[in-house]
Amino acid sequence: MRFISGIREMQQESDSLRAAGKRIGFVPTMGALHEGHLDLLRLSRQHCDVTVMSVFVNPTQFGPNEDFSRYPRDIARDAALAESAGCDILFTPDADEVYPPAYSTWVLEENLGNTLEGRARPTHFRGVTTVVAKLFHMVKPHCAVFGQKDAQQAAIIRRMVRDLHFDIELIIAPIRREPDGLAMSSRNMYLSDTGRQEALALSRSLRLAERFAADGGLDAGTLRAIVENEITRSGAVTLDYVAIVDAETLEERDDISGPPVLLALAARVENTRLIDNTILKVETIES
Amino acid sequence: MRFISGIREMQQESDSLRAAGKRIGFVPTMGALHEGHLDLLRLSRQHCDVTVMSVFVNPTQFGPNEDFSRYPRDIARDAALAESAGCDILFTPDADEVYPPAYSTWVLEENLGNTLEGRARPTHFRGVTTVVAKLFHMVKPHCAVFGQKDAQQAAIIRRMVRDLHFDIELIIAPIRREPDGLAMSSRNMYLSDTGRQEALALSRSLRLAERFAADGGLDAGTLRAIVENEITRSGAVTLDYVAIVDAETLEERDDISGPPVLLALAARVENTRLIDNTILKVETIES
Repeated sequence: MRFISGIREMQQESDSLRAAGKRIGFVPTMGALHEGHLDLLRLSRQHCDVTVMSVFVNPTQFGPNEDFSRYPRDIARDAALAESAGCDILFTPDADEVYPPAYSTWVLEENLGNTLEGRARPTHFRGVTTVVAKLFHMVKPHCAVFGQKDAQQAAIIRRMVRDLHFDIELIIAPIRREPDGLAMSSRNMYLSDTGRQEALALSRSLRLAERFAADGGLDAGTLRAIVENEITRSGAVTLDYVAIVDAETLEERDDISGPPVLLALAARVENTRLIDNTILKVETIES
Repeated sequence: MRFISGIREMQQESDSLRAAGKRIGFVPTMGALHEGHLDLLRLSRQHCDVTVMSVFVNPTQFGPNEDFSRYPRDIARDAALAESAGCDILFTPDADEVYPPAYSTWVLEENLGNTLEGRARPTHFRGVTTVVAKLFHMVKPHCAVFGQKDAQQAAIIRRMVRDLHFDIELIIAPIRREPDGLAMSSRNMYLSDTGRQEALALSRSLRLAERFAADGGLDAGTLRAIVENEITRSGAVTLDYVAIVDAETLEERDDISGPPVLLALAARVENTRLIDNTILKVETIES
């Protein structure tokens, strides 16, 4: 595995790879790698000849009261994990180079980012779209892999790629879960053993919703109430939102049949904000 | 000369050219070509193997009361001129493809665009940065040529390229003028013969400023007053602004010695808004 930090060096390496006819896959991360990230690497390897993983804790996607400073950083561990999963190039740009002095340019998706996570984290997605656009220009990939765990992020990046005509194929990887159902997240390490158990209410409520939805006949409001009840009944989890939205436009949906519906939720356990989601599958009788 | 309208086709053509080791030059225009545009083409040909010129009248850079609908369009004439100046590919994307349904992503430079032209045209530069980013992703050039005539646009594109790490070399071409000094502009064709004569006050005032500045000793305020007086004394020209700013940051400057200073102005002649500018050269004694 090669290590690259310089942006210019990364661009030149990508130019060389492209000139040699190699297909470049890209997995952007903030480090603190877990099996979910390694799934993204493995998917990239299936689709591409060379896989670049970036590790960059992006300051602009954290709010002023969020966990930027305490976000877990362990590049030696990340490098070992990335290499074990077949990463070819580990790209670790410096914040001072990613954000040059007096930088003033943003990439802004102004519709899909206003709901769900965007309500609790108003500047989050502006930071995400901006850094992803920058990283795309640095790595020049043919394809890029993101996780369905961050469903809204995936929808926004998809919209950005379409709107700005990035010539990049997006691949969205399914959520990777612990054996007991908890969605893998770098932030799970903030939880105590008790909190870790309480957090299972999130995935449990999604499984419940999936079962009810599959039977059909429920409207979004009832389904949401079932999920809310399941999450809050222990009293240990503070719900932020349960949303039932169109999976592509993120607009609220009353009817869960028809185009794919995303059930997304956010909740706080021991002051750690966790998210989870599922795409609902509804049994429908073809007319 | 090849004609391409499809975005996908343009991207594939650029991939092929790059794979063949060709250096791609790009000249984005809104058509209504004049010798100024052809200078950009010729510059691109000096630096690159293949030159792509786009003709796209970008709706998002016009304000609601501006001249989008009457902006001159004559693609046959433009094609003939482009070919005569050595253009290899004329790229004419459709607005419906450039701006897909329910598009919601913008590239926003939020500092340099608030002054000068940005005051009179508050959404103009957002439209410019967005469409240029899109076109860069479509044409994938190694270098791109813009005109110094739109000095603020050039500064903003330079900032965008730096901030978002576009791997593109920018070349800024000097202002091309008519023999009597009028800066070439597609909007000059809106002027009557009388208006055309009155418009000479703009370039005349810049020449005057250049002479005074070269002698040294004048502060920006005095120099600005000289320019304002020269433009307005006939009564036929309505001044919008005369600004003396840092050529890179566009911040107001009192002292015209030191880093390069841009003298930029905008004025209205017969309801047509014209702009012109010069970089002041001050004789300084090396210490």
